Amino acid sequence: MGATYRALCDHGYAALTMQDIADESDKSTAALHYHYDTKEGLLLAFLEHLYERFTEKYGDVEGDDAVERLVGFVDGILCQSNLDDPEGFQTALLEIRAQAPYDAAYRERLAKFDAFVTDRVESVVADGIAEGTIREDVDPGDSAAFVATLIDGVNTRRTTIGDTGGGTRRTFLAYVREHLVAPGADVTVDDWSGDDESDDSPETTPTERDGGAGA
Amino acid sequence: MGATYRALCDHGYAALTMQDIADESDKSTAALHYHYDTKEGLLLAFLEHLYERFTEKYGDVEGDDAVERLVGFVDGILCQSNLDDPEGFQTALLEIRAQAPYDAAYRERLAKFDAFVTDRVESVVADGIAEGTIREDVDPGDSAAFVATLIDGVNTRRTTIGDTGGGTRRTFLAYVREHLVAPGADVTVDDWSGDDESDDSPETTPTERDGGAGA
Repeated sequence: MGATYRALCDHGYAALTMQDIADESDKSTAALHYHYDTKEGLLLAFLEHLYERFTEKYGDVEGDDAVERLVGFVDGILCQSNLDDPEGFQTALLEIRAQAPYDAAYRERLAKFDAFVTDRVESVVADGIAEGTIREDVDPGDSAAFVATLIDGVNTRRTTIGDTGGGTRRTFLAYVREHLVAPGADVTVDDWSGDDESDDSPETTPTERDGGAGA
Repeated sequence: MGATYRALCDHGYAALTMQDIADESDKSTAALHYHYDTKEGLLLAFLEHLYERFTEKYGDVEGDDAVERLVGFVDGILCQSNLDDPEGFQTALLEIRAQAPYDAAYRERLAKFDAFVTDRVESVVADGIAEGTIREDVDPGDSAAFVATLIDGVNTRRTTIGDTGGGTRRTFLAYVREHLVAPGADVTVDDWSGDDESDDSPETTPTERDGGAGA
């Protein structure tokens, strides 16, 4: 699984071969083929493995209240501090996502990540309503869809244009502060656990935006 | 350009050949190669053509006030009512986006779309602040990044899991209503110009979510 991760980061999905994965491991391609008939089969197992890691890591986010847990959850997923080469990985993941319409098995695995995120957000928002930190008229399901969409948007936009600026993060916090937090609730939504200036993107890279837009 | 669009929708990006594009047109592959050396060259010209169409269509959205123009702008981009086969097209576009980190020319073209969206939103929000329909403490740049991220998120999530439910749209409207609209401003943000129940997705398709999440 580690070799698959490294090979995906280095080669992307489309160009990836079983040989690339074997080269990153101490296995031969014959040994890989013994366990997995095809590249797709290996990648489905890899997505299962990622899902287990992901749900383990984000299944139980700490925080004094639901608002802090929600912000910490989104922060953790977007910061990807646990990943080596997050850009390479997100690029490969976007390629796999683009295969989903053609491939029910990929679609099913990817939908599990989405369902995990929406279920977690829905449950944290419902907890917040019950404990009085989140407004009663907030719809947990709508908030969950919104957060899942934002996460997908940040990852896609980062992959396409590189650095995405801190605006999305700041506006997400404003959304939490103004739309979710119950009036008078004793919660603060001032900062992320990460460095505020470090932005949506784990690594700031030059973008084509200025040049492209001005041309 | 029409043939390129249809061929992309039918075959996706990775599998697309000059022959596929020729088959959709009245040209031979030799004639295509006369104008474009490679598939990439043809697709760069196609992205330029799309950009011209896109900026023409969304460069001047009608509305009585800035809030209405902002909602109409986002609505128009997400509804894609002008596209044949929006799902096929978004899938191909996601594949091209996943190529951006490897290909500066694609990245530059795609960044122009992003810059157009953020520039438009920034300018509409600034107009709203000036006319008094949008709160003075709203940051136009942050709002623009947020809207661009949401649009990318809706498109990516649709491609990956199919139907995405109406929650994102409803929450976007709540964001506009609660975060952007100036207190006492005479604007309404109750509905989209599209059918409210028709959801984020132009076509409702079954998803793997229920089955995947419960397994």
